[in-house]
Amino acid sequence: MSLQASELFEEFQQLSPSEFFRKNKQMLGFSGKIRSLTMVFHELITNSFDAAEEAGILPEVKIDIQKLGKEHYLLRHTDNGPGIPEKFIMRVYCSMFAGSKFRNIQSRGQQGLGCSGCVLLSQMTTGKPAKVSSAYIEDGKLKGIRMTFKMDVKKNKGLLMEKEEFIPISTGVSIELQFKEVAYSKAEQGAFEYIRRTMVGNPHAKIIFRDPEGEKYVFKRAADIVPVLPKEVLPHPKGVTADDLIFMAKHTDKRRFRSLLSSSLSRMSENKLKEIEEITKIDLNKRPKSMEWIEAEEIVQAIGKMNFMAPPTSGLIPIGNEQIEKGMKEILKPEFIQATTRRPVSYRGGVAFIVETGLAYGGDSGRIVNEQRKSEIMRFANRVPLTFDQGSCAITEALKTVDWKRYGIKSLDNIPLTIFVNIISTQVPYLSTGKQSVAPEPEIVHEVRQASMIVARKLQKYLRAKKAAEEKEMRSKIFEEYVPLILREAAILAETDVPEYKEVLSKVTHRALAELFGEDPDKAEEIGLADDRADEEDDADEVVNFDEKIEKGEDSDSLDQYFNE
Amino acid sequence: MSLQASELFEEFQQLSPSEFFRKNKQMLGFSGKIRSLTMVFHELITNSFDAAEEAGILPEVKIDIQKLGKEHYLLRHTDNGPGIPEKFIMRVYCSMFAGSKFRNIQSRGQQGLGCSGCVLLSQMTTGKPAKVSSAYIEDGKLKGIRMTFKMDVKKNKGLLMEKEEFIPISTGVSIELQFKEVAYSKAEQGAFEYIRRTMVGNPHAKIIFRDPEGEKYVFKRAADIVPVLPKEVLPHPKGVTADDLIFMAKHTDKRRFRSLLSSSLSRMSENKLKEIEEITKIDLNKRPKSMEWIEAEEIVQAIGKMNFMAPPTSGLIPIGNEQIEKGMKEILKPEFIQATTRRPVSYRGGVAFIVETGLAYGGDSGRIVNEQRKSEIMRFANRVPLTFDQGSCAITEALKTVDWKRYGIKSLDNIPLTIFVNIISTQVPYLSTGKQSVAPEPEIVHEVRQASMIVARKLQKYLRAKKAAEEKEMRSKIFEEYVPLILREAAILAETDVPEYKEVLSKVTHRALAELFGEDPDKAEEIGLADDRADEEDDADEVVNFDEKIEKGEDSDSLDQYFNE
Repeated sequence: MSLQASELFEEFQQLSPSEFFRKNKQMLGFSGKIRSLTMVFHELITNSFDAAEEAGILPEVKIDIQKLGKEHYLLRHTDNGPGIPEKFIMRVYCSMFAGSKFRNIQSRGQQGLGCSGCVLLSQMTTGKPAKVSSAYIEDGKLKGIRMTFKMDVKKNKGLLMEKEEFIPISTGVSIELQFKEVAYSKAEQGAFEYIRRTMVGNPHAKIIFRDPEGEKYVFKRAADIVPVLPKEVLPHPKGVTADDLIFMAKHTDKRRFRSLLSSSLSRMSENKLKEIEEITKIDLNKRPKSMEWIEAEEIVQAIGKMNFMAPPTSGLIPIGNEQIEKGMKEILKPEFIQATTRRPVSYRGGVAFIVETGLAYGGDSGRIVNEQRKSEIMRFANRVPLTFDQGSCAITEALKTVDWKRYGIKSLDNIPLTIFVNIISTQVPYLSTGKQSVAPEPEIVHEVRQASMIVARKLQKYLRAKKAAEEKEMRSKIFEEYVPLILREAAILAETDVPEYKEVLSKVTHRALAELFGEDPDKAEEIGLADDRADEEDDADEVVNFDEKIEKGEDSDSLDQYFNE
Repeated sequence: MSLQASELFEEFQQLSPSEFFRKNKQMLGFSGKIRSLTMVFHELITNSFDAAEEAGILPEVKIDIQKLGKEHYLLRHTDNGPGIPEKFIMRVYCSMFAGSKFRNIQSRGQQGLGCSGCVLLSQMTTGKPAKVSSAYIEDGKLKGIRMTFKMDVKKNKGLLMEKEEFIPISTGVSIELQFKEVAYSKAEQGAFEYIRRTMVGNPHAKIIFRDPEGEKYVFKRAADIVPVLPKEVLPHPKGVTADDLIFMAKHTDKRRFRSLLSSSLSRMSENKLKEIEEITKIDLNKRPKSMEWIEAEEIVQAIGKMNFMAPPTSGLIPIGNEQIEKGMKEILKPEFIQATTRRPVSYRGGVAFIVETGLAYGGDSGRIVNEQRKSEIMRFANRVPLTFDQGSCAITEALKTVDWKRYGIKSLDNIPLTIFVNIISTQVPYLSTGKQSVAPEPEIVHEVRQASMIVARKLQKYLRAKKAAEEKEMRSKIFEEYVPLILREAAILAETDVPEYKEVLSKVTHRALAELFGEDPDKAEEIGLADDRADEEDDADEVVNFDEKIEKGEDSDSLDQYFNE
């Protein structure tokens, strides 16, 4: 009965990445009919936006989805990006783990799985090939190519079926895919809501969408600015591991430790290199290929003891308060809106990130459940809506710890409120290949919490002021209704005419009410929301702002402490 | 400012699976110091158990972990399995997506990621190579080889450094790995607790563990039976997709549709093939390579309309009530224990699975939180403890819906209770590459719920009987204390001797109390838990037992309904 090792290993196999994900499509987020289609929208939109922005183009996407049968759809997705050169088309759409986004740059996609995942799902459910048209500029000429292909799952490669050139008018990519066993839905986790949220996070984009019933939706731009292009930034020394150094040393074309370090890491000045040499006693003129693990480790340890300027944040481009507010206004038509963008900080020692929040109240804010408006949370990472797996996400974790009652919000259940949170980073620490939740790194949770409290406080002030205004209005009405009556009765009793009192009365009323509400009667002509940006950092006591501190040369101890945690 | 496509694609890259996971190690479950080390234990133990059982050997594993510095450990893991032949050693430990477990067979591992993940983590944190000794039988001879190697991450392959033969005494594999930035812990999610839970689910295994303080723990076998070897089973027709058929057709050596279908799918008899031919009008003598998508789809549709015997369950080997109880007794020393193993059913149409639960009360059951014993849930899939990501798991979801109060359990917070749930399947639908939670497929949630209610009802009976016994004991004491007094006083009054009353009194007391408790006075000598297996399916009304029903030839309508749901 006992089996020999050689027999047990007869069936040993090496799977290609595509084969692996064919067997485990739920790991790409393809589980459930509604979710699967939403993930397709997500991957295609994300890619189009990234491509357009990288090329400096204001993104515009057209999506057309037709129902061909029960749970059977045809999807046409067209963008106005720079296009894909012919030789990369099948690599983009048919090779898993392939892409141009593995750099240390802020982008929506980062794994090289999304587009090929969509082609895989289409092929798995319908057996139909993908059709792609790409128009792009090469050697100064505008070229157009149409290709029809399948994915060779065993080889993790495309399998060309047809190809023809065409004469395009402008650049862009159009893809046509069929899907079965998926469902279009307007529910919270459905494709339509995904587009709506995308527009909130990307007010500079335009989406024209035709739904399966032929209804056309035009989501217009709320802002006409192409976001500043994020730059590729070098990793910060504090975030680098010995393994990273060895990996860099092995694959570099630099000829000395010195040049390897200064060309691969940010903030690595001549002075810093000298400091490393002094601490480690390692000759930095040695050749990278000869780097030993122990040397890499000593360099990392030395870096750990040194002070550096904070990670460069030029690579991080937040949406910005104004744009967030525009996006939310366009979609939610709220009566109150407030956004805040935090200063950049780092997690895991050296990865910079920025948290932004927005709070919309009233209008179409929140979502309708059983004919009642409840609050909703819109999570984003690098402007991409996160729709699933909210349970373990840093954003959910952080919002749970906020004491909303403190801000006059008795319950999140019965309030027309939309809470928007966006995390910007060159490296968002996603928890799974489906990229639907962010790892609860303590620094990220902290920032989300702080940012939410800032906007919550603004809302509290607004709600208080609104209530006060209503009361004042009521009292003022009583005052203004009764005084004329009294005057008239008095005039009748005194047998005189009613005097001209309107202007005087209005002034008196305002002053009286101002005094009642504890305001300066000389100033309080209108009910206003005082601008109190000065106090908005009240709760933000633990925040370390690297750049400021280092430039002022102060507090290097506490910075050190932060890095050595 | 506008960039051309060709410039944007300059940095297009293809990552190897190892490179991808090097950048995303959290997707292998390596996030957090404690969790990372637990995952290493998990992967190594899982692999050793699978290998030993496949070879028909009772698994025995020795683990030795030494602390070398702050967050720096040396791990030695040795098993008594069949060993790994020389040419497969580096493929097992250095290639992602490689393995012998991609068959349709019940096994703990199934992804080909685990072992190479451990080597990757070791290399990433310490730069040290892996050391493996393997002793195996080849061509009837016992051979031994020792290898030292690193992983070439770019190539997803091993990089041999040293190799020597040795003369072994018996088969098995030993691996030595160093890790930094990990932490050994006795907490719930730590490595020690992982071993404890492993023993509950694998009472036939033995683990000898030496912790970083040098303390030696021997987890002995509670049962001496090698579990029956699960057989590889063919997929059930109801679970097959058109894409599966096309994939099989493309890679088969069979020469007709007919032989392809009968050799690749279970329950595919001559009669069934004839039925498919009649419904689809497709000539099943055609060559597989010519199979069109539309034909594959028509075959799948025909299968959808047909009746088949349920999936073969010979591939599923549950632990079994007796073994679960042995395992839990050995580890928890409870005062009450009850396990139940459900009959096999299917999810997603054609994937068979079995749910088992066990409930232990008292003794070391539950876990101590703030010096109080609380209930604990031990989740397992194919006998492997699931330690993380409980939130979205089918087991957690199911247990939440059980109305524990109905079973006399007022709160799960204050009761020394361990709830054990094991899901057995050839294809456990894990939610992520880290394999820590099971997708909440409705059929799985249903089964876990039913099985839990069955054991909960047993516990309720036990608790009731225990309470009754305590009351009875109390009353009986009062009776037996007072009657002698009365007799003595009566004897004094009557000026006679006290009669011999003890034997008579005991009998009378028992009969009196039995009557008081509504039992048959002639039988009730002891307080017993009546065996009431007959009613244990009370709640299980919706369960479909395929084999039974089909063998009896009854109820094919409702079966059909189940498959067509």
